[in-house]
Amino acid sequence: MEALDSVVEHFSSLPTIGKKTARRLAFHLLREPLEQVQLFADALVRMRESVRECEVCNTFTDAPVCALCASDKRDRSVICVVEQPTDVMAIERTGDYRGMYHVLHGALNPLDGVGPDDIRLQELMSRLGGGLTELILALNPTVEGEVTTQYIARMASPLSITITRIARGIPVGADLEFADDATLSRAFEGRVRVTV
Amino acid sequence: MEALDSVVEHFSSLPTIGKKTARRLAFHLLREPLEQVQLFADALVRMRESVRECEVCNTFTDAPVCALCASDKRDRSVICVVEQPTDVMAIERTGDYRGMYHVLHGALNPLDGVGPDDIRLQELMSRLGGGLTELILALNPTVEGEVTTQYIARMASPLSITITRIARGIPVGADLEFADDATLSRAFEGRVRVTV
Repeated sequence: MEALDSVVEHFSSLPTIGKKTARRLAFHLLREPLEQVQLFADALVRMRESVRECEVCNTFTDAPVCALCASDKRDRSVICVVEQPTDVMAIERTGDYRGMYHVLHGALNPLDGVGPDDIRLQELMSRLGGGLTELILALNPTVEGEVTTQYIARMASPLSITITRIARGIPVGADLEFADDATLSRAFEGRVRVTV
Repeated sequence: MEALDSVVEHFSSLPTIGKKTARRLAFHLLREPLEQVQLFADALVRMRESVRECEVCNTFTDAPVCALCASDKRDRSVICVVEQPTDVMAIERTGDYRGMYHVLHGALNPLDGVGPDDIRLQELMSRLGGGLTELILALNPTVEGEVTTQYIARMASPLSITITRIARGIPVGADLEFADDATLSRAFEGRVRVTV
């Protein structure tokens, strides 16, 4: 059944979807009405056609400039640098941050050939003037995120901007006993005074 | 971004896909070329349009009669009854079974209102004549599978056909210590003589 195999192939090319799950998803759709499957197919194409990157912060949006960059309720003196649009969404869900964003669409990875020109670093540099007072680096706590954090910090150091990074430590709700050594080291390094 | 939300909605309506994974899949597709996404969408519709149920055994196929039912290499004196087309595929992968199949597309579930007329039991009855010598019941080891197994066994008992069920026991490679009580009970019940 070539038509089925093709769908299984497409599903299993997606992240976290193995061959077995892909088959299960395809079979599920075989039981759905044709109209439903057609709607799904249309939604995929419509999404890919309409969603683009924000001209300012590079996150995904369906307008030239995203809702966050267009808002007059956000603090334009702070930019938070993240790797992916999903990171913007995660931070927005906390409701704590009111500044702007800059999405790099990746992190430096010299071994995989991802250099400074392959992520949105030039675009970040061009945003560092004006009334900017703080640059918050919120990259993933991986080797690539670390390299990128250091690179941006060095790149921005000549400017009179406060450069910070988000804390690395024990996740809320996690068990200290099972934390890995690197996380525990960072948690100690980043300890803060208890205020009473 | 309504177009993105719609895709996330569709993905998360699939089994085993939560909201978080759905978002991740959608974002992955945003990075794929439009042509690739278009191919995926086309494959979904083409599959749903071309795949139907086999007129004989009810498994999914793209021809009126599936390859297994059409084959002259299969033993027509045995029918193996399963719940889903995926079960046919799983059994075929073992390469051990050479008989025919019958897919019920479900199992009896009185609590959820799934009765004998909601699964392919009439169609099974109509296949029990002729040269059939054995009916192998390979339903899931769940309450529903059990009820259905008993129902079919009773239904077919007036005919002179051997009715068997596949063994329930400790899975190969599993640890006896961690087997649940019901499985262990069945494993004892179904013990077989060791031949030397």
